[in-house]
Amino acid sequence: MNGAESLVRTLVVNGVDVCFTNPGTSEMHFVAALDKVAGMRCVLGLFEGVVTGAADGYYRMAGKPAATLLHLGPGLGNGLANLHDAKKAGSGIVNIVGEHATYHLKHDAPLTADIEGVARPMSHWVRTSANSRALAADCARAIHEARQAPGRIATLIAPADTAWNDADGPAEAEPPAAPRTVSGDAIDAAARALASGEPSILMLGGAALRGKALEHAGRISAKTGCRLLSEFNNARAEAGAGRVRVDRLPYPVDGALATLAGTRRLVIAGAKAPVSFFAYPGKPSVLTPEDCAITSLAGTADDLEHALEALASAVGATRTPPAHVGERARAALPEGDLTADGIAAVLTALLPENAIVIDESVSTGRNFGPYFTGAAPHDWLNIMGGSIGWGLPAATGAAIAAPERKVVALEGDGSGMYTLQALWTMARENLDVTVVLLANRAYQILRGELRNMGAGAPGQRATDMLTLDRPNLDWVSLAHGHGVEGSRAVSLGAFAGALRAAFSRRGPYLIELAL
Amino acid sequence: MNGAESLVRTLVVNGVDVCFTNPGTSEMHFVAALDKVAGMRCVLGLFEGVVTGAADGYYRMAGKPAATLLHLGPGLGNGLANLHDAKKAGSGIVNIVGEHATYHLKHDAPLTADIEGVARPMSHWVRTSANSRALAADCARAIHEARQAPGRIATLIAPADTAWNDADGPAEAEPPAAPRTVSGDAIDAAARALASGEPSILMLGGAALRGKALEHAGRISAKTGCRLLSEFNNARAEAGAGRVRVDRLPYPVDGALATLAGTRRLVIAGAKAPVSFFAYPGKPSVLTPEDCAITSLAGTADDLEHALEALASAVGATRTPPAHVGERARAALPEGDLTADGIAAVLTALLPENAIVIDESVSTGRNFGPYFTGAAPHDWLNIMGGSIGWGLPAATGAAIAAPERKVVALEGDGSGMYTLQALWTMARENLDVTVVLLANRAYQILRGELRNMGAGAPGQRATDMLTLDRPNLDWVSLAHGHGVEGSRAVSLGAFAGALRAAFSRRGPYLIELAL
Repeated sequence: MNGAESLVRTLVVNGVDVCFTNPGTSEMHFVAALDKVAGMRCVLGLFEGVVTGAADGYYRMAGKPAATLLHLGPGLGNGLANLHDAKKAGSGIVNIVGEHATYHLKHDAPLTADIEGVARPMSHWVRTSANSRALAADCARAIHEARQAPGRIATLIAPADTAWNDADGPAEAEPPAAPRTVSGDAIDAAARALASGEPSILMLGGAALRGKALEHAGRISAKTGCRLLSEFNNARAEAGAGRVRVDRLPYPVDGALATLAGTRRLVIAGAKAPVSFFAYPGKPSVLTPEDCAITSLAGTADDLEHALEALASAVGATRTPPAHVGERARAALPEGDLTADGIAAVLTALLPENAIVIDESVSTGRNFGPYFTGAAPHDWLNIMGGSIGWGLPAATGAAIAAPERKVVALEGDGSGMYTLQALWTMARENLDVTVVLLANRAYQILRGELRNMGAGAPGQRATDMLTLDRPNLDWVSLAHGHGVEGSRAVSLGAFAGALRAAFSRRGPYLIELAL
Repeated sequence: MNGAESLVRTLVVNGVDVCFTNPGTSEMHFVAALDKVAGMRCVLGLFEGVVTGAADGYYRMAGKPAATLLHLGPGLGNGLANLHDAKKAGSGIVNIVGEHATYHLKHDAPLTADIEGVARPMSHWVRTSANSRALAADCARAIHEARQAPGRIATLIAPADTAWNDADGPAEAEPPAAPRTVSGDAIDAAARALASGEPSILMLGGAALRGKALEHAGRISAKTGCRLLSEFNNARAEAGAGRVRVDRLPYPVDGALATLAGTRRLVIAGAKAPVSFFAYPGKPSVLTPEDCAITSLAGTADDLEHALEALASAVGATRTPPAHVGERARAALPEGDLTADGIAAVLTALLPENAIVIDESVSTGRNFGPYFTGAAPHDWLNIMGGSIGWGLPAATGAAIAAPERKVVALEGDGSGMYTLQALWTMARENLDVTVVLLANRAYQILRGELRNMGAGAPGQRATDMLTLDRPNLDWVSLAHGHGVEGSRAVSLGAFAGALRAAFSRRGPYLIELAL
């Protein structure tokens, strides 16, 4: 077999059986190998940001890495923004990037670029394979890297001759390291902090926002009176009725400061200590009060479930019923204009059981969280690196990972435009994704940011850089052009009707909300 | 004034008066400064690949750099692919990239990334400004770098506090170095090669494909009998009736080898020595025969017009009428099915005088060149770095640079999908661009490449990675969604009708050719 076949076989034998692709000439042997190797599902994206964002969404729901197949430096460059988001989310990805044949590089043909240089800022691990017989082992190492907890971005660069020359066969990846067990000292310190009687917060992130870890957090809160908080954005949180509710730290600095005001003890499990998303003149970067002591119980590489179980035990909460358990909202569907609160209420009422919510709703959806406590149980995934254009690709990958679940993508019009090509992949693969497109015809978030930056009121030219009107985008046409059906709603009643219709069918559907 | 205003003023006073933007929070002071400084035209793109590709197209037609405004590492990442193309084209661009405030970086907020690392592979010059008083001078230096011949990619990273803190005022950029004058020895060597009586080629690139330089080349060919050749892709070539015709080296290796077979002397002026675009098993990277002597007359940093004038003089061709001057084709418009040759014939017949042809027609347009010799005089711009998704953005920038000229973008469906958001900018700015969308519903070029790579006939799974069907893209809907009118043609007659209509109006229009 040739190197390409050894590479594909290495992926498959190690359980990497989904590959999001946008190939070019230098990847043709990889593509040809797909027909020789059973067990690899290949999914084409028409832009590389779709490919890498899909791999992020896939990892978050499948709990294991997908591969990507990208074309040389520029193709990898197009995928960088969503690799950035994936890196910040702790999503493992195995990038396979084609390269000119080793002997061709010296001729500086048009597509020649420093691929390792392009890869490094958004990768934890980068290697260029030296020859076809090394390719399988290099791939196995990339898989090993990607499977760490938290997941890592591993980028393997494969010169064309490593793909077409002879190889020996697939290689087996070393298993990833087991999650670290948190020390007794760390648990005791966290228990002392929460039992201090002072205003305290248990701040959760990563796997602490799911399953038994989340339940333990609810018990700890019930017992000690500590508040439960997460960062504004989370890679994957379980929410809805029957789940322990965790408040999100607000995105605006003033709101975050108010939330944290008076807190004397902050215990962290899988999250980062609160800092502002951006710096603003005259406002702090660190959001906790100066006299708040921060105690790190566990990081994202630790066994968070064990850490929270041990903490619950240390504070005597093992049998305490969890606090803040969400109850199903039973309010009537709201009618009238498309307000943010009304949209949230409609979604909350109609969200299918076990849905996956992909949240790139940016400004419109900033306060959706509390509503969704009353929704049917679901998973809630946020953009983690702030690089917009994540939502539609992530929804694509999540739907591939969890085909039996309804995916609901809450997408801003500004952010959606970066990677709208994902709609085509949803259509081709008939993915069960409902896109709720929040069309406010502006980079609305930036209007607030301009003010918060102390840059004054925008004049005409600044306003032109923040608006998406003249002409308005027509998302129903954009969806149709990609082969996805859609409709436009201008009232909450029409939205509820469209949502019911979308949820009662399988396959992609887009609802444009003209805000 | 603050740093941002000093930056915008520095751009304007040095003649950089167009800025293609996709800003975010860290760029808000730059955006606010637009309202305070007269003379800067800001053009919004809804994806950064549009922004950087437009700057490339702008430079090629305006002959001077535009600025771009990009948001942190991921925003720059999204622009890398078209910066790659611009770098290979020798197009000067001043990238302004926002960054977190200097003191905020240590907190590793979500958007934190190694921006210099992202910039370096596609930039000639990279600097992070240290403080607000340094920003204007750093910008002046970036402009100086970008204005070299050939143009360079200069990337200036501006932390948010360098924008909002106080600055002194704008700075003046040093003028670029004058083009180098080619030595008499180089001219003599080239003259000896072409006068040797052996089969010889004068290979032209860059500015040698335009104006008086091109005329001199025609005289030299008439006098010495040398053939005139260019690379397959050229940054900007003058072509059509009344211009000296220069053949393009074919893209396929076999065709290129056949074109160069028997050549004993190759003289280069502004081009690269012929190498294959990719390596293929069993085929050479270097395309010239082994016994062909290569003489470099001048590179892209040299004064090419002077070099060719001096060479014409050295071979005694100063008064020789140029050879290969194109004549206006007067054939009747073809009818019938949409063949590549028929499409070229229709375009040739109807192309307006002085049009700018943006050629990202990939496989369909591979042999368009000879037809266009019979068209009205025009400029022909190719993608230079092989990173597809260049055409629609480049057309956008070219139209901004030359508002009085009709821009005709020949765009493949596969390549067009990477940066289709450019259509919206065309609509917002009412740019006079006719897009001819060649929809073969496949990465057609890769079907050939798979075969040329010796990877065999594609099976179903490989074919799925090379086709854009299931579902078919509907480009008329995509255009409409972006605010651009369009229509679909399925015959040459319908194409001619649509083209006539598009050429008789101002503003963007898309014609989808269903191949």
